[in-house]
Amino acid sequence: MENRQVLIDSLPDEKLTTDNYKLVTTEAPEPGDGEILCRTLLTTVAAGSRAGLQGSASYAGAPQTNIVMNSSGVARVEVSNSDKFETGDLVTCATGWQDYSVHAARHCQRVTDDVDLAHYLGALGTNGLTAYFGLLNVGEPQAGNTVLVSAAAGSVGHMVGQIAKIKGCRTIGTTSTDEKCGMLIRDLGFDAAVSYRNPDFRADLKAACPDGIDIYFDNTGGDVLGAALFRMNEHGRIVCCGVVSQYDTSNPGGGPKGVPGLLVNKRIRMQGFLVFDYLSEYESARTEIKNWIKSGDLNPVNDTVEGLENAPRAFVDLLSGGNVGTRIIKVAD
Amino acid sequence: MENRQVLIDSLPDEKLTTDNYKLVTTEAPEPGDGEILCRTLLTTVAAGSRAGLQGSASYAGAPQTNIVMNSSGVARVEVSNSDKFETGDLVTCATGWQDYSVHAARHCQRVTDDVDLAHYLGALGTNGLTAYFGLLNVGEPQAGNTVLVSAAAGSVGHMVGQIAKIKGCRTIGTTSTDEKCGMLIRDLGFDAAVSYRNPDFRADLKAACPDGIDIYFDNTGGDVLGAALFRMNEHGRIVCCGVVSQYDTSNPGGGPKGVPGLLVNKRIRMQGFLVFDYLSEYESARTEIKNWIKSGDLNPVNDTVEGLENAPRAFVDLLSGGNVGTRIIKVAD
Repeated sequence: MENRQVLIDSLPDEKLTTDNYKLVTTEAPEPGDGEILCRTLLTTVAAGSRAGLQGSASYAGAPQTNIVMNSSGVARVEVSNSDKFETGDLVTCATGWQDYSVHAARHCQRVTDDVDLAHYLGALGTNGLTAYFGLLNVGEPQAGNTVLVSAAAGSVGHMVGQIAKIKGCRTIGTTSTDEKCGMLIRDLGFDAAVSYRNPDFRADLKAACPDGIDIYFDNTGGDVLGAALFRMNEHGRIVCCGVVSQYDTSNPGGGPKGVPGLLVNKRIRMQGFLVFDYLSEYESARTEIKNWIKSGDLNPVNDTVEGLENAPRAFVDLLSGGNVGTRIIKVAD
Repeated sequence: MENRQVLIDSLPDEKLTTDNYKLVTTEAPEPGDGEILCRTLLTTVAAGSRAGLQGSASYAGAPQTNIVMNSSGVARVEVSNSDKFETGDLVTCATGWQDYSVHAARHCQRVTDDVDLAHYLGALGTNGLTAYFGLLNVGEPQAGNTVLVSAAAGSVGHMVGQIAKIKGCRTIGTTSTDEKCGMLIRDLGFDAAVSYRNPDFRADLKAACPDGIDIYFDNTGGDVLGAALFRMNEHGRIVCCGVVSQYDTSNPGGGPKGVPGLLVNKRIRMQGFLVFDYLSEYESARTEIKNWIKSGDLNPVNDTVEGLENAPRAFVDLLSGGNVGTRIIKVAD
């Protein structure tokens, strides 16, 4: 059985391009005892995995070439050598960018199709859980707080804004275009949105946050962090989730002016987190998120690209700020 | 009755000098109803008050000239128009740099001479309380943690290191000279000390913290913060207490490289605080600190300069890193 795979062919010197990948066709692997053969249906393209392609400042370990690009996916069990699953079951697992993969059954989790399967890679996957734990456990929102989120149209950001609204907060997003600002307000219930590429960005941000900022959920670092810091209220919280502004470069820049002086004067807490630290709370979080989806309070956006062969292009495009919601590759029906 | 006063004569353009002050002699004020006339015995010289002399980045409000330099002090009641105090009582109040001052009785607090009176301006004053609440409430030390403190020979730092030892932590200090490093280890029980002016500072810091840093108590910002950040352990805490490296300049610099990237990867919490937020807990903290002094677990260092007229020189010298412990001006017996 043929297995198409997208391999990392070379590591990017500066900006990532589609030339850093190659598509190969191999033979699908055979599952051993206790293992299952999985047919990839959907798989992810995540900005965070860009960090795994450079040698520094990443929690993902040293980069390698000639391996299948790592990703989470939703798959259908084709062959099961485990009591835990039967052929036809649906699971989430680390499919990678390929048609077929073999996994120990204990590394796969059964899912049900009572919601759109793509949500398991978005709202119910790492992105959604990151938004959930970062905002609720690190940011500690109170009703009436002003919450700013950067990369607000992205996979994590568009969830943060909606969860903040569910918690009774005023929500402002930053994103890269006026078009995406409009979508945040119109479709996702943000109270205001600001394009960071606008030359008047700092003035726009000030106008959008007349009462200052209580929680800044930072997906970007860089200029947006620098501007947000000067609008923080006393006892504000900055949730440090990611530094997408610095992923696609081999030389990340200096830190924001105002650190640590403003942190002292305004008693600001700036705290980094990784979603994996909350593993023991994933199930209860997923239950709550699924309920929000079913009730219509949460409207996760999945931005689906057809075809495994289009994954590299979809990833490069994602890093340049070209998408809305969670970017997902549809590999098979 | 003559009252010598040290006034702020001009605001510093760059470095503070003694020329920014002038000594004048006026008539001592008369206390009104409910007020007391206080004879200053001891008063403080605090690095934090440098920020009040520049127009930005300060919690102390806009700077002014031709006013008495603000400071806390220990005073003896000379005349009392209040039921609360009698002539001869000892109090702490905002004496300023002058011989006599008048205060509403409710703004003064009685003290007792069961410990050296100078401790009320150091270990039991704002400096000691800052060390106490910053380390314990923000840093949350656990026995066995490694605690680094910058400006470790200073009024706050030398208390932080000793309280960390009381809590069972390994304690390292940074300071400006090898001589002060020796004093920290020999006299105050620090496990190690590093001079930040040494060209091998980063290597020295690494050698002094072989197991990384769990809590960094930052009194300085600048280069020490930049170096400490790269030695922080996962889930480490950076207590942002002050930015003495940036007080004596009109143009504070940029933030440390690694913010926010390292905060994310290592799940670091970086948190500013002001001691005034803990006002309701001052009394219980003072009781605990006084017990530590009496038991000999805590040895606060008071660095006493004789004579009100020497206060400006003592302040300029303090900002250049020339002192150990809490600098106090002895005004009268």
